[in-house]
Amino acid sequence: MSQLPVSTRRHSATHILAAAVLQMFPEAKLGTGPATDYGFYYDFLLPRPLIPEDLPILQEKMTAIAKQQIPFEYYEEPTSTAKQFLKTIGQDFKVELVEKFEKNDGTTKVSFYKNGEVFVDLCEGPHVEHTGQVGAFKLTHFAGAYWQGDANRDQMTRIYGLCFASDKEMRQHEAMLEEAKKRDHRKLGKELELFAFDEEVGPGLPLWLPKGAILVEELENLAKRMEAKYDYQRVRSPHIAKEALYLRSGHLPYYAESMFPPMELDNEKYYLKAMNCPHHHKIYAATPKSYRDLPIRLAEYGHCYRYEDSGTLFGLMRVRSLCMNDAHIYCSEQQFEPEFQKVIEMYLEYFKIFGIEKYQMRLSKHAKEGLGKKYVNEPELWIKTEDQVRKALQDMKVPFVEAEDEAAFYGPKIDVQIWSAIGREFTLATNQLDFAVPKRFDLTYVDQDGQEKTPICIHRAPLSTHERMIGFLIEHYAGAFPFWLAPIQTAILPVSEAQSEYAESVYKELKQAGVRVQLSAPDETLGKRIREGQMQKIPYLLVVGDKEVEGKTVTVRKYGEQAQVTMSIIDFAAKIQAES
Amino acid sequence: MSQLPVSTRRHSATHILAAAVLQMFPEAKLGTGPATDYGFYYDFLLPRPLIPEDLPILQEKMTAIAKQQIPFEYYEEPTSTAKQFLKTIGQDFKVELVEKFEKNDGTTKVSFYKNGEVFVDLCEGPHVEHTGQVGAFKLTHFAGAYWQGDANRDQMTRIYGLCFASDKEMRQHEAMLEEAKKRDHRKLGKELELFAFDEEVGPGLPLWLPKGAILVEELENLAKRMEAKYDYQRVRSPHIAKEALYLRSGHLPYYAESMFPPMELDNEKYYLKAMNCPHHHKIYAATPKSYRDLPIRLAEYGHCYRYEDSGTLFGLMRVRSLCMNDAHIYCSEQQFEPEFQKVIEMYLEYFKIFGIEKYQMRLSKHAKEGLGKKYVNEPELWIKTEDQVRKALQDMKVPFVEAEDEAAFYGPKIDVQIWSAIGREFTLATNQLDFAVPKRFDLTYVDQDGQEKTPICIHRAPLSTHERMIGFLIEHYAGAFPFWLAPIQTAILPVSEAQSEYAESVYKELKQAGVRVQLSAPDETLGKRIREGQMQKIPYLLVVGDKEVEGKTVTVRKYGEQAQVTMSIIDFAAKIQAES
Repeated sequence: MSQLPVSTRRHSATHILAAAVLQMFPEAKLGTGPATDYGFYYDFLLPRPLIPEDLPILQEKMTAIAKQQIPFEYYEEPTSTAKQFLKTIGQDFKVELVEKFEKNDGTTKVSFYKNGEVFVDLCEGPHVEHTGQVGAFKLTHFAGAYWQGDANRDQMTRIYGLCFASDKEMRQHEAMLEEAKKRDHRKLGKELELFAFDEEVGPGLPLWLPKGAILVEELENLAKRMEAKYDYQRVRSPHIAKEALYLRSGHLPYYAESMFPPMELDNEKYYLKAMNCPHHHKIYAATPKSYRDLPIRLAEYGHCYRYEDSGTLFGLMRVRSLCMNDAHIYCSEQQFEPEFQKVIEMYLEYFKIFGIEKYQMRLSKHAKEGLGKKYVNEPELWIKTEDQVRKALQDMKVPFVEAEDEAAFYGPKIDVQIWSAIGREFTLATNQLDFAVPKRFDLTYVDQDGQEKTPICIHRAPLSTHERMIGFLIEHYAGAFPFWLAPIQTAILPVSEAQSEYAESVYKELKQAGVRVQLSAPDETLGKRIREGQMQKIPYLLVVGDKEVEGKTVTVRKYGEQAQVTMSIIDFAAKIQAES
Repeated sequence: MSQLPVSTRRHSATHILAAAVLQMFPEAKLGTGPATDYGFYYDFLLPRPLIPEDLPILQEKMTAIAKQQIPFEYYEEPTSTAKQFLKTIGQDFKVELVEKFEKNDGTTKVSFYKNGEVFVDLCEGPHVEHTGQVGAFKLTHFAGAYWQGDANRDQMTRIYGLCFASDKEMRQHEAMLEEAKKRDHRKLGKELELFAFDEEVGPGLPLWLPKGAILVEELENLAKRMEAKYDYQRVRSPHIAKEALYLRSGHLPYYAESMFPPMELDNEKYYLKAMNCPHHHKIYAATPKSYRDLPIRLAEYGHCYRYEDSGTLFGLMRVRSLCMNDAHIYCSEQQFEPEFQKVIEMYLEYFKIFGIEKYQMRLSKHAKEGLGKKYVNEPELWIKTEDQVRKALQDMKVPFVEAEDEAAFYGPKIDVQIWSAIGREFTLATNQLDFAVPKRFDLTYVDQDGQEKTPICIHRAPLSTHERMIGFLIEHYAGAFPFWLAPIQTAILPVSEAQSEYAESVYKELKQAGVRVQLSAPDETLGKRIREGQMQKIPYLLVVGDKEVEGKTVTVRKYGEQAQVTMSIIDFAAKIQAES
């Protein structure tokens, strides 16, 4: 039972919902309804607008149907008979669907699923055996939706529900949502004074306030250390380039709608960069290269601009200005596997640092049908490079799944999904093999045999963009960043004016030691200052009263812990040293 | 004699040049001719194009006139008489000038300087006493120039000359130019692989290659350490903003021609930022401020874009993409003097670090005539803030000069000129007091008395832009950067394959210690590799032969020194530690 794919349960739940709707509104016309990530929805044309009070009624009817354990029975019909039947029961949208199958795919036979006398629907399946196997479900809300997404067609009522294998799993999911609300990066971003948006600057263009800029700087420092360890070289490139560059890269015209509109200058069009690769290719090309120079790994935290519809902008997660943890590795074919593996290793190192325990790598491949359209038309190279990437992952024993028709236009890629501490999924970053674009840029190196060859390019961005990564980390840590990342690492709270001098000396000592420390002067009560420090999620609050002055100590309150420990400043410094 | 201002000598030289030109071309019409930084020029309408061979002839005639020690005699005439006289001698452009003075300034009397029977010219002076006092001069070249800079008027011939108090000074200047040619940042930038321009990226948009990016990073690290010491907070802002932001700041429309053209998006105009202040003001405004928060010092290496005519672009010195060592200090009026002084202190610290021994601070003030036009119309505030800035400098005992009509539109500023090691002058940066713009942005803080007040803003950029500063440093150090800044700090040169293993271990040890080290494998002769290392101006070349392997030592060749010293790796590490 519990081995049943949850998507099958969710799919079956849509039939139970539709049956319940028909019990309540016999004249309802059914649209379509798929399984979703956490449940399902179904679109209906109803005789009256739905009201919130309808949902418990529908829920009750669904529960009753589930209890009856009515089997799902499969049968097929020729399309002509099927249309006749659907017309008879008044399901015009379903008739339209069958006509569409006939027209588009030459379908001559369709399938139905029937639940005894309760319900029948045009459906490909698969389904659970009977309505009792659906698991735990719950209707959550409803909204409007056009039939077939077409604003000129009927406005339907879309009813949403959750569905899980068990009540326990559903409750976990609901708790996660509840927790996610508390951890919402937009809410915490404001409370912790990390970033802001401004109407006159523009939507989707975050301003990093001082505390947020510390997160940005610390992530960059981490990336620089990591990339230095892996022998990357850093470069810097401007944020604009002529149209010619993007025509060469192929981003124009194919990617034009994701780019900002051009600026006309000296009779030339200039574009804000939406990616850093074309600039990096030009940096590669600026000096001659030999096989001895390879692999060349060019890294830059490069700030790109992408046009996103203003309606889709969302906090830091979907923005128009994005600073990317970018790098491009130029290597020979022989160097590809170890280079690609080192990139994957780097991902895994980062996951460890951030305590990301659940992740998924997906090998995104081309589809034959897309060759010459969305994919470079090099059938053998696709097969070969997909094999190379697969082998690189297999040799590392890194688990992965494969997905057809998901590649970049210039080669296969690894998409990486990560899950935050509360189990929410984020698309983190990609690691891409590019066998096509170096040729377009005439990139070469002189090989050992004196011949000019074209390098392979690996595109990688394990820390994604600052915006997305910090959005993720805010939720992941609920704003209580680890010591090394925390904007304010320690606050010193003298109980009263009497300890001000000592507090000041502790402040200076810690600042001298490179700690991001704040002195919280006694102009408010100690209790209020402690609460403020906790609200700001400062890792350590150091309270100093007369006892501490006398003993040359501090009393340490660690964020999230009740216990207080009094220790010498040297011991405290040693303690945080270990966390840095 | 030598106390004569050299500008007076140069001005007088223009008269001698004009007299010589009239001797050679009696029908020549005189335009105008000012003193310049190192000499002078004068524009003439000549009966035939000048050829290079004409210059020695003119020079000889000038020398003869100088030898005659003809006095400069001053006299005045009513404009009517003056015009009559100038028409008589056929100097139509001069007539036009007198008419312009009459019209624009209501002039009724003009002055002339006469050299006996040799030459007379409309002129305000001052001049030397006689032609023998001009000093050393030398015609250098000529070029075309439109009368009054108007492409619709006559094309004149502009003749350029050098002029110094003595032959010795002129020779020094010429030697400096010769040295400057060798140190040309465009030439060294290419040889040292620091930066590149690319036709498809666009003119004036430098790409920092890996070695140049190290200079950029090291300068940023220096600035970050310095700014941390002075309690700055770092921020990050996007590179674009809506038109509304620049209308509010006042940069539009007044500064529009230096800005890139807008991008039209969602029915809004977006501009690339040409300065960081408007974004920083928005960051200040993003959270409420009290007097306890002040002063707030927001720092960012912010990348700006300015439109410069493609003809005026010059290497790194005049570019379209510039990354600025920017910061804005928001403070109360009482805090202004100490804050301003701390900025000046920071300038002086930087000068010490870079060995800049000659510098000049200039207090640039408003001009009454410009009030309400190029300067904010606040006559009392101008006087008061100029006094504040003057007092701040005087209290610090920092020498400075004053200049009328050179302020920013929002307040007085300090312009800083520096001289490179070879005596060339660069405009480095400014330190500006802004009493006007915070009000336009509704920036406030709640003062001790509970009242909302507007802070003063100090704009400062002591390290200028990366582009300009690195252009300067390349010339200043002739590409031989000090150890801490050098892209490659040390190269290890094994004499032959026999020492490869040892060389590798030294390489690893130094890399581990954070040294930017390069291993120069023995695939070329040692001599060739040493020359290559010297061409790359690497601070230390470490040669390792059998003797060094045996003794666990390295033989150190310091750049620019002949002596070689053999020492242990620990001693070498200690030596460079001291230079980092």
